[in-house]
Order: sequence, then structure tokens, then C-alpha cells
Amino acid sequence: MTASWEQTATAKRNAIYEKIPQEWRLAKIPTAEEQKDVTGTYVHQFLSEKEIEITETDAVGIVEKTTSGAWTAVEVTKAFCHRAAIAHQLLNCLLEIFFDAAIADAQAYDDYFAKNKAPIGPLHGLPVSLKDQFHVKGVETSMGYVGWIGTFEGKKGTGKEKVFESLMTTELKDLGAVLYCKTSVPMTLMTGETINNIVGFCLNPKDRFLSAGGSSGGEGALVGFKGSPVGFGTDIGGSIRIPAAFNGMYGLRPSAGRLPYEGMANSWDGQNTILSVVGPIATSARSLKLLAKSILSTKPWLHDPLVHELPWRPEQEQIDTSKLTFGVIKHDGIVTPTPPVRRAVDMVVKALEKSSHEVIDWSPTPNHEAILKTAFKTWIYDGAAHAHESYALSGEPAVPQLANFGDEPGPQYNASQIAAVNVTKRQQQKEYMEYWNSTASKTKSGAPVDVVISPVAPYPAARRELFKYYGYSVWVNLLDYTSVVVPVTVSSKELDPVDKDFKAANTSDQEAHDAYDPDIYDGAAVSIQLVGRRHQEEKTIAIAEYVAKVLKDAAT
Amino acid sequence: MTASWEQTATAKRNAIYEKIPQEWRLAKIPTAEEQKDVTGTYVHQFLSEKEIEITETDAVGIVEKTTSGAWTAVEVTKAFCHRAAIAHQLLNCLLEIFFDAAIADAQAYDDYFAKNKAPIGPLHGLPVSLKDQFHVKGVETSMGYVGWIGTFEGKKGTGKEKVFESLMTTELKDLGAVLYCKTSVPMTLMTGETINNIVGFCLNPKDRFLSAGGSSGGEGALVGFKGSPVGFGTDIGGSIRIPAAFNGMYGLRPSAGRLPYEGMANSWDGQNTILSVVGPIATSARSLKLLAKSILSTKPWLHDPLVHELPWRPEQEQIDTSKLTFGVIKHDGIVTPTPPVRRAVDMVVKALEKSSHEVIDWSPTPNHEAILKTAFKTWIYDGAAHAHESYALSGEPAVPQLANFGDEPGPQYNASQIAAVNVTKRQQQKEYMEYWNSTASKTKSGAPVDVVISPVAPYPAARRELFKYYGYSVWVNLLDYTSVVVPVTVSSKELDPVDKDFKAANTSDQEAHDAYDPDIYDGAAVSIQLVGRRHQEEKTIAIAEYVAKVLKDAAT
Repeated sequence: MTASWEQTATAKRNAIYEKIPQEWRLAKIPTAEEQKDVTGTYVHQFLSEKEIEITETDAVGIVEKTTSGAWTAVEVTKAFCHRAAIAHQLLNCLLEIFFDAAIADAQAYDDYFAKNKAPIGPLHGLPVSLKDQFHVKGVETSMGYVGWIGTFEGKKGTGKEKVFESLMTTELKDLGAVLYCKTSVPMTLMTGETINNIVGFCLNPKDRFLSAGGSSGGEGALVGFKGSPVGFGTDIGGSIRIPAAFNGMYGLRPSAGRLPYEGMANSWDGQNTILSVVGPIATSARSLKLLAKSILSTKPWLHDPLVHELPWRPEQEQIDTSKLTFGVIKHDGIVTPTPPVRRAVDMVVKALEKSSHEVIDWSPTPNHEAILKTAFKTWIYDGAAHAHESYALSGEPAVPQLANFGDEPGPQYNASQIAAVNVTKRQQQKEYMEYWNSTASKTKSGAPVDVVISPVAPYPAARRELFKYYGYSVWVNLLDYTSVVVPVTVSSKELDPVDKDFKAANTSDQEAHDAYDPDIYDGAAVSIQLVGRRHQEEKTIAIAEYVAKVLKDAAT
Repeated sequence: MTASWEQTATAKRNAIYEKIPQEWRLAKIPTAEEQKDVTGTYVHQFLSEKEIEITETDAVGIVEKTTSGAWTAVEVTKAFCHRAAIAHQLLNCLLEIFFDAAIADAQAYDDYFAKNKAPIGPLHGLPVSLKDQFHVKGVETSMGYVGWIGTFEGKKGTGKEKVFESLMTTELKDLGAVLYCKTSVPMTLMTGETINNIVGFCLNPKDRFLSAGGSSGGEGALVGFKGSPVGFGTDIGGSIRIPAAFNGMYGLRPSAGRLPYEGMANSWDGQNTILSVVGPIATSARSLKLLAKSILSTKPWLHDPLVHELPWRPEQEQIDTSKLTFGVIKHDGIVTPTPPVRRAVDMVVKALEKSSHEVIDWSPTPNHEAILKTAFKTWIYDGAAHAHESYALSGEPAVPQLANFGDEPGPQYNASQIAAVNVTKRQQQKEYMEYWNSTASKTKSGAPVDVVISPVAPYPAARRELFKYYGYSVWVNLLDYTSVVVPVTVSSKELDPVDKDFKAANTSDQEAHDAYDPDIYDGAAVSIQLVGRRHQEEKTIAIAEYVAKVLKDAAT
């Protein structure tokens, strides 16, 4: 007798929980009302001082310790396994737990270090979490679909189940990273909240009334909880940046073709107008650099046909901070950011201006409305055929956040229609690029703007089922720009009251306004993104690190 | 009253001819029977010694003279205009002639030189011909469609007619190049022979019984005739390499995203599974480098959203000729190359082996049959809708070479079907890439093969309406590899008799065998391509230059 989808999902959910050692299980899971913020002092009660020290060190700090022998890979790994186990119980953020394999790998690295008096690679002993699109040997990939459980990407008997490995998985191991868990995703990956029928809704650790974001939401929650120093997500419309921002973390959305996507599971694989990209979410900007640079040191262009031969370029990190200029998007012309997001953008602008940087208004042609119209067409090319096929594998229902995909597949775009979108996209990229070039005539330095400051979403984070507007993230995907998320502040019911006399310009504007509640949001992280030109990962990360410092200085 | 397509085509054909100065018009155009080969001594009768000297100097040699002031831009330009005018009369290779504008531009460069005692750019005074996909200010672009005459890409009243310029056109002018003509293409660009209803069938200058190839066939004929030292074509299935090979010239098919395609006219623009790329055809390998390097010096990635930030990398030109290893494709498993092509491949292999290079058999997985099956699907995505729409603009009939597009549009691929092709393509690229990596275990050097020697087509050139098999060029497009065409020898009725006892493996094999005739082909150029990995333009051109030298040494 075949199991029902509910039985399969429950068995999987229980199996994940069973991977948590008894001593790490919490006696009671508080509700959001009982415990809104589970970071910081709340989680500290469950951890040793050493565990706190380790898990509150960023990736760069960790590898300084592990590559010098100050910390063993095993103690670091165990600390993060413990904190990740707590994270999952409080937040529903994991889809795969493989702590035993991680500790065994860490032990092997320690043995290597003991024998060779040298680290195995630049990421020696660094725990790295992975979104559940990465295939890892010995571990399943469900990608949030009940119908994928026990299969390889929905197919049975391929021989690849728990054997095949994504390219970056192998590269991370070769670099010395310790893999220990895979994080939750929304089914289809096409929503900014993370929810599936296996582990349910992923909560925001800073504010458990809110979503951790999506689609790399498990990753965002885990890193935000410091259950991981750095993890990898993917982004086709904001899926790295949204959870990074919602959890007050740093996140890199590189341009397509920079980091290897080879061998990853995906939704509607083969849509190639706007490509999903892989990138890190971390607790510091310099950690994004460590990971990106380390991955590029493996020459991924020799193993991924879509990666360009662009090694890490140290000369492009050398930013002249006396000459940096910024563009700023305070409003995209469609949806008004909610008060805490507006305040965060203003804080960044003021801090930069105080540091003598020029910040100019960003008023591009084409406007974002035109760009978004093009981008959203790519989301419905296949009439959600892939989504419906995936639901049908188990008979599970779609989560409410996917209502826009309908009850059955819609009409598909044909080749001529897709070609027309591709042409429009390229024309818009060209026009936007020339707008960017033209800012040279507007800046005092006479050079084009270096990066653009922009919200990531209208809200600091999303309330459940209320994430309706993706315009602040999606424009970057259409243009294929580099973006780095930088945390700025926390939402405050005192500083960020509801806009009085608000008059919505359109339905989306009204929805964003209505979704904001100062009490619910009080204490939630608020972040912005710095958007650099295509393939400017070195420069954009360097500027993000600098801006974070400027913000820190301004706060003290 | 609206003109018939025949009237429009005739008027355009006559207008092109009228642009040829009276003194450059030939009294009589010999038939192929009367004059098979119109290169060399035949054309010399119409030219002055100085004109011969100039037009038989390669692009690098020309810029040495023009940038030092030894030759004026005007004298160089006039010499090539004259030879191009003769080429067109004998070969039907031009769609646009703008000698007056060219001479005026050349004069301006000369004035600049006189004033500044320095060239205006690295291509100062170098005549460069362009395939009729480039938009040039003041000049029409028909792209071989009668229905495009008097329009901008088939649309009337756009305001762009004869005003809009392709990015590379502008860049070439900025570099000091002199633009003077645009070369003929087949309507739709999707055939390896060059024929349209405006100027007719483009002949091969070395052997006027044969096609000059396509779709950059006007370019191939013109450069082959030395009516241009270097010109630009495009390649989505062999369209640079086929005419380069058929005319015994050098041609570069770069990987996508290296040279800027921005603002070019195209067929079925927006098909983005396999992108058309732009690249030079020239009389020497070092000229390919000059042009590619010069274009990249303009930083085209700041003006073309599809160009990657890959400047010319001089360090990648530094090939160690003591360690080069080669793969060789003598047969692709589908169609047997005709005797002169087999001999050319053998000549290259023997010359390299004589120079102590290792040449190993190339037996990739996936095999080429699988690759071609994927590639050819992209050709029919839109059921030839774009082609039929373009014919319909004027009511002109398709040329016989396009019979496979049918009398009306066929069914289109939908989004899911296109996505499936994209996935298969990427998987094949990955598998092929790993095969290439694996050749490290087969070579004595322990490094993977540097470049692969391959035919470009089964024949030295095509007989009219007999170009049926594109497998030897198309595999490179699917894999997005760099390829450089190198001329090797000429066809010989003595050395290359018809294969006796030939047994065809399939219809294509039989057709290629049947198309070969030692008498017709006697004297025709025979070339091969050297295929490098993706984005290895520097290295592949350097090896091509080296191989050309090895061949020359072997011949003497």
C-alpha cells in the first residue's frame, strides 16, 4: 500500500527531528507570543560559553582559528550542530540533518591538520549550511516536495539518489568546509516565505511573528540564529537577499555565471531568460568574500559550462573610499516602503553623506515598472506546469502562498513569445546600463555611481501570507546585477509609526501599507541592498564592508 | 502604386551597382566556365602595382604602415574600394557600397595624423568590411530581405532608418577603422550558401563553380578575393567558419559574450539557447587577434549587457609550443569528409607530429550525433515563423536553399519544451567538458588537449544547393567553444580522387559523397578549424598562428 502524502511528510518530518541528539532537544517550544525573539540571550541559556564564543564568531574569524590550530574542526562543528538543532526546533528551518557525517569529516580534517601541521584548505573546519537544492552524498534532496522524498528530483530508481553531488558541494568539501545540514525552502522556490508540507512554516528568529523570508528562508533563519556562520542560497527573484535582509544578515546575489550552479536541483530548470544564481548568506560582509573567493580558487569554469572564466580579482576590491558615489532608490515608483525600511535607507544615506560621500537620486530609464513587467513574464512561461507536476508526484496541495499558480497549469508561452521577452530584456538591460553610464555627468567625481542603495522589500520582513510585492528585489535579477545585502537597524514601534493619511497609488501599495504593524514588527531586523554592476562582486562586497563600517561608526 | 518585390529588388541591385565608379566597372563578366579562379593574376590585370601591394598586405601589415604614416588612409581605402568593386562584379558579394563616405573618413584620419603626428587609434586607416547585419549610419540594412529595403529591420517609420548604429560599428570607427561596404548574406541567415533575391548567388573567388559559403558568405568571398583585409561575420551554426574555410581564409568564432553583438540586426532575435556570435574573417591569424584585441580595448561590457568583463589577456597568448597537444576529429561518426578535407586534416596532423607534437584521437562523450540532435532543435523553435514573416513583408519567395523551412510556419516549441532543450544542452556541455578534462590522462604531457583539429564541413566548399550537412560546424556552437579556421591546401583532382567502393552509412553520408567532384573542386581552398575551450580566444588564435607556421614550414 502506498503511503499518503501526509504519512510520507510526517515520516520525513519525524526523521529530521530524530537526527537531533536527545541532549539537544528542547523540553518545550515556546509560542511566538511567549518568546518573540529567540536570538541572543534566549538561545544562550542552552549553550556553553565556548559554544557561544564559537557560534558568534564569523566565518573569517572561524577559519583564522581552525587554520591555525587554535580551534579544532570538531569543536567548531559540534557547536554549530548544537545551535542549528535548537534553531530547527524553534524555527522549522532544516530539511536535512547529518551531524554525524559532519563530525566525522571534521575529525578527518583535524587528523589531517595534526599530521601535516597545515589546514586542508582555506575553509578548513568551517561549517557551511546549504539550501536544500544542493545534492550532498549520503543525504536526500526533497526541495520541499513530498513527492521528491525517496527519489532523485522526483524520479525513482535513477541510481543517483543520495549518491550524486552538486559541483559546489564537492568544491566546498575540497576547500575544507564541513557540511552538516540542509535548510528549508518553499515548495517551487517561488515565494518569499519558506513553507512546505514537510516541516511547515519557517519562522524569523528575531521576530517569530514574521517569516524568515524565502526562498532561501531556512538558510536565512539558521544564519540569523547563528546556527551557521555561512550558508548558500539561490536567487532568481530575491531568494538570497530577502532572507538575508529579513534576518539582518549579509547576503550576496552574484551575477549569473560567476559561481557554479552545476548539478543543483531546481524548479523549472531550463528557463534561461533569468537564471537562478547561487550565493552566500553570512554574519559578516568579509565572510561573503571568503566564500566567493574560495569557490573561485577551484576554477569552477572547468567544471560548470555556465561559469565564466572570471577568477577573483583582488585589484577590483581596491576601492578608493574618498571617491565613492552612491545612487539611492527611496521609492521605486510603484510601492512605498514601510516606515522602518524608509528609515533604514535614510540612515545609510545620512551616514554616507556624513562621511562626505555623494548620494544621488536614482531615476533610471527604463523605470522599474517596465523592468518588472518583463521579469514577471518569465515566472509564468510554463503556466506553472513544473509546479503542478511536482505537486502531483505525491498528491500534496500547494501552500497558500502559491495560490497565484492556480489549481491547474495555465497556457504556456511559445517560442516567439519567449524570444520577444528575451529581446525586451536585453534592450532594457542596455538602456539601464547607459543610464548608469550617464550618471558620470551627475556626480561631482565625474565617474558613474559605484553602487545603488535600495530596499530589498517594502517591509523589514514579511508577515505570513502577506508577502505580495517583489519589485524591490526582482529588478536586480532582470538586470543581472551584483547585490549585497547589508543589515542596518531594527524596526521600532516608537520610531516607525504607521503612515498617517497614507494614500495608496495602487493595490500593491495598499497591501504593503496594510501589512505593516509597528507592534508586530518591533525589534525585527531592517536591511538594505547595495547593487553593483554586472560581475562586480569584488567591488560590491568591498563597498558593503565599508558601508557596514560607516554605519557602525555612525551608531557610536 | 506599390512596387512588386521584383521591382524593389531590381532597383536595389541596380543602386548597388551604380555606386561603383565608372572607371572600376568591368567590360565583361566572364562565366565560371570562362574564368573559374578570379583571384591572383586574374584580378591583377585590373589593379595598379601599388593597389596590389596594399590589398595583398594583411591587416597587421596595413596598420603598421598607416599608423606610422608610410601609407595614407586614403590610398589604402581607395585600393580596397577598387578591389571590392571588382569582387562584387565577379562574385555578387556586396549589399551596400559606401566608398565616398569611406574615402571622406579616411581623409579625416589622414588630416588627424598630419595634425597630431599620431594615429587616431590602433586600426587607423584600416578598411574593415561588415556583414549586412551591422547597422551603419547613412547606410541601409536589408539583410538580404527585399521586405527590409527602405525600413529598419522590416519596420517603416521608426526614425532609426540609416541613423541607428550597431555598437561595434561605432567602436570600429572610434578605433580608426574605415568602413566602406557591407557584404551579402542569405535571407534568414540560416543556410551555408549565400543567396538572396537582391544580388543573387555569391560565388567563390577561387572556384566560381562553388559557393563562397554562408551565412557570412559575402564577407568570405570579399576577404578571399582580397577586396578586404578583414571583415566581420556572425556565426550561430558555422556562418563565420564556413565562408572562412571555403575561401581559404582565417576566421574566428569566439564564444558568446566575448565580442559585442549589441544593436545588430538578426534573424529570430531572442532565441537564446544558442546565441549567434560576431567575429572576424581575415587573411592572416594575427589579424584576427588585432581586431579582437582592439575591440576589447573599448571595454564593450560597459555598453553591451551580454558581453562578459573579459579584457584581452596577453598572458593567455603565451603558449608553450614545446608542450602543445592536439585532439583530432577525422570523422564525426555521421558523415565521411570528402577526400580533400581528409587530406587537409592529415596534412595538419603530420606536420604537427613532425614537429614533435602529440595528436590524439578525439572520441568525446556525448558523441556528436547527440549534440547535433539538441542543436538542431533550436533551429525550429519558432517553426520558422520569423522567416515567413520576413518573406511576407515583400511577398518574395524563399530561395531553394531554405526549402526545409516549408511553405508556411510550422508548430512552435512551448516553454517546457524549450526548457528541456536548455537542460539537455547544459548537460551535454558538462559531459563534453569533463571528457576534455579527462584527456589529461591520455596525453604524454599530462595536461588536457589544447585544441581539437576538426573539419568545418564535409567538403572544401559547397556546390550550389548541395550544402546539406552542418554537423562539422554546429557542434562548436552548442558547446560554445572558441574556433579558429586555418587554411591548409587546395583541392586537387590528382591527389583527391573520388572514394572508390564508398558505402554510405546514412543519407547525409551519401549526399556528401555525391556532392564531391574532383574536377569541379580542383583548385578550391581546403581548411580546417582549431577548436579551443570556451572563452579561449587568446590561446586558440595563438595556436592557429603557430599551426599556420608549422604548415608553411612543412610545405617548404
